[in-house]
Amino acid sequence: MVVVGAGYAGLSAARNLVDAGLDVVVLEARGRVGGRVWSETTRAGALVDHGGQWIGPGQHHLQGWADDLGVTTFPTFGDGANVEIREGRRHLFTGLVPTSDREGSADAVAALLELDLLAHEVAPGEPWTHPDAIALDRRTLGDWVVSEVGSAAARAMITTATLGVFGAEPCELSLLYALAYAHGGGSMSALLRTAGGAQERRFHGGAQQMAVRVAEALGDRVVLDAPVSSVRHGPGRVSVTADRVTPDGHRRPWRVDADRVVVAIPPATQGRIAFDPPLPGRRDQLVQRSPMGSVTKIHAVYERPFWRDEGLSGQVVADTGALRLVFDDSPDDASHGVLMGFLAGHEDRILDGSGTAGRAAVALAELAAAFGPVAGSPIEVVEQHWSAEPFTRGGPVACLGPGVLTGCGPALREPVGPVHWAGTETATAWSGYIDGAISSGLRAADEVTAALGRPVRQGA
Amino acid sequence: MVVVGAGYAGLSAARNLVDAGLDVVVLEARGRVGGRVWSETTRAGALVDHGGQWIGPGQHHLQGWADDLGVTTFPTFGDGANVEIREGRRHLFTGLVPTSDREGSADAVAALLELDLLAHEVAPGEPWTHPDAIALDRRTLGDWVVSEVGSAAARAMITTATLGVFGAEPCELSLLYALAYAHGGGSMSALLRTAGGAQERRFHGGAQQMAVRVAEALGDRVVLDAPVSSVRHGPGRVSVTADRVTPDGHRRPWRVDADRVVVAIPPATQGRIAFDPPLPGRRDQLVQRSPMGSVTKIHAVYERPFWRDEGLSGQVVADTGALRLVFDDSPDDASHGVLMGFLAGHEDRILDGSGTAGRAAVALAELAAAFGPVAGSPIEVVEQHWSAEPFTRGGPVACLGPGVLTGCGPALREPVGPVHWAGTETATAWSGYIDGAISSGLRAADEVTAALGRPVRQGA
Repeated sequence: MVVVGAGYAGLSAARNLVDAGLDVVVLEARGRVGGRVWSETTRAGALVDHGGQWIGPGQHHLQGWADDLGVTTFPTFGDGANVEIREGRRHLFTGLVPTSDREGSADAVAALLELDLLAHEVAPGEPWTHPDAIALDRRTLGDWVVSEVGSAAARAMITTATLGVFGAEPCELSLLYALAYAHGGGSMSALLRTAGGAQERRFHGGAQQMAVRVAEALGDRVVLDAPVSSVRHGPGRVSVTADRVTPDGHRRPWRVDADRVVVAIPPATQGRIAFDPPLPGRRDQLVQRSPMGSVTKIHAVYERPFWRDEGLSGQVVADTGALRLVFDDSPDDASHGVLMGFLAGHEDRILDGSGTAGRAAVALAELAAAFGPVAGSPIEVVEQHWSAEPFTRGGPVACLGPGVLTGCGPALREPVGPVHWAGTETATAWSGYIDGAISSGLRAADEVTAALGRPVRQGA
Repeated sequence: MVVVGAGYAGLSAARNLVDAGLDVVVLEARGRVGGRVWSETTRAGALVDHGGQWIGPGQHHLQGWADDLGVTTFPTFGDGANVEIREGRRHLFTGLVPTSDREGSADAVAALLELDLLAHEVAPGEPWTHPDAIALDRRTLGDWVVSEVGSAAARAMITTATLGVFGAEPCELSLLYALAYAHGGGSMSALLRTAGGAQERRFHGGAQQMAVRVAEALGDRVVLDAPVSSVRHGPGRVSVTADRVTPDGHRRPWRVDADRVVVAIPPATQGRIAFDPPLPGRRDQLVQRSPMGSVTKIHAVYERPFWRDEGLSGQVVADTGALRLVFDDSPDDASHGVLMGFLAGHEDRILDGSGTAGRAAVALAELAAAFGPVAGSPIEVVEQHWSAEPFTRGGPVACLGPGVLTGCGPALREPVGPVHWAGTETATAWSGYIDGAISSGLRAADEVTAALGRPVRQGA
């Protein structure tokens, strides 16, 4: 069995296939495992998560891995007041929704509730089965916001929330897709919350750890630095070719033959593998219509989480500017201070040409506006500009525009002969999250074992 | 100099680079030239154009090639009445817009005029410079139609027109993109017309001929069956690797080194080349957000164009069903009859799994409903299902959704070091048409010669 990709989805598939007694080779393009989850200790000694980092209620697959591997969590810091930047002015608020514009605040809460009611009717795994699927898929979330949300302040809040969740502008997303995505994580409100929501807790030692430990257990089965270039497939057999670095330091094609393959990489990068025979038209059209969001995570490291002294949570919600959302990403022991901001959607693309230094300058100016001049002079700034990452090309997740789910959605998980699909985008719950990646790998492994006549397992 | 792709854009670039005295190698993935233009003589002896086939007023680049190469044209047949299928019933009409619903007819004309007025203000080459670009790009054409077009019949007509022009549903297209595209061909109305519009004339001998003759003149410089897999690039140098068929019948990597490369393939397939270093984030995000439309061309061949005897033009406009638009594609001498229908957008994707036979059955039933039972029994049916074509993966053109042009548009033609971009999607006039492909190749060749310090030519 071959698994393409050693992110959480691929590792989950591999782990379950090995448990079923199958031979497995995992081919990973990068020199590390974890995919969109990557923890790194910076020069200044701060442990930062460049990608996925949180765990929240209901993420049982991820919690199960953490429990199995003895990885512990701690609450995302959220004590004190949040900063709101609205029309260039700074306000403080507590709770989920900024309050400086009372009408906007009420409208935003009403809009979130309305979205949650709509989302509740959409089946996350198969949104195209909704009775009004065509109509919901024809609209964008942005179109819905323009027609349903009265105040400009509330529209800006929903936009900021969308940028944080999807790395995309509301106009880029099909309403049906946004609703299914929200329902997959419980509700839109749940996706936005720290306490009680998707950002509730963080991992001691970083979110990549479980991937590293599972990969260690898989041992030589995981081959790093081996980007897959082609997949030949026929009934009951595949030949997967990767560009592997040989001991003499050169890249050479390396072929692995197997019964089946689980492709566990983002849809946008699946199209970059040459399939022979080519994938069916509808499958390829789906892949062409699943672009990654645009997101950069910027971490600023300070001697101390100084904002806590002033009763601030470190969280920022802004209606304009580059960093629309900021979180306190300091370690549990607060041995130093870390602020993490998201640069997302349009702003992230506009600043692509500015480079790391240009983005840092913009981010620090905005952090200083939120937390005072000292925030503008951190010990260190590090960023991860995901759209420049050759094996992900954006983040955090695929952003489906209008018409895609109803036109191509049924091809999302449907195997093509011996080729199976995993990855968080294929998850029926928590799509876009680490939890969805893990469950998708389990589901793909179950497909493979069922196809081979092995008993289908439960759980894990 | 390397050119990737021997469609009209790549051949135009190559022709102009050779004229400037440069060494050129054109690498073409397929065993033929022409790209999205492909003429074939069927078993029954009919010459059909599987892709681009028409020429209209204002397409000076294509007309210039035809004149140079002595290829002649003839009017698209349009005498007599057109068939309208509305709510399952058949009506006859003349002119551009179906008339069975008078209010719908008037509304559709008004909507086309309004779109043309809006389009006139959008610069086709750089729509992101429009003062309201962000607002126009945030909406879809579908959203505009829903809010601006009163009658259901008119909305259906605009949808059918959109399917014919873009191979996409109105909801898939940014309004800004649709307007720029229309302006690039004069107006939306011009894109829809046969006489006086983009479908005015056809080529004796098919539309691929000019490509074939230009390729013949380029001789050994054009290498077929050589899909490019990677492009390494640095200041002033590129190494392009293709999978070439060697004389022993095996595919082996074959590297061509050059000063610069012109990539003249659709954006959706550009992402499938491994660029080293990887392309900038914004450029890649553009490529991820430029999916091809979905279109299948189905040709039904008959002994005679029997519909002409009944005073019918052979044209059909339908508000539902698979074939929304049908044209008379018989040869100039009417030695046999050919009806050609477009299967586009959602319907084309839904019918992907039905295969050639399934699509033919659906198409023949609808042709019989329009032209009587005899239309259901042709001598031959041939199709080209473009989304299954591995080196195009859809058609006729890239379909940009909301937010793409304003977010990523400026990356469309911007060279990345020694890598230049051609292809009809990059054209500043007649984007999506053969004419735009030719002008894009000329523009890219001019960029290359200017970068090398060669005199910039005019015209050609």
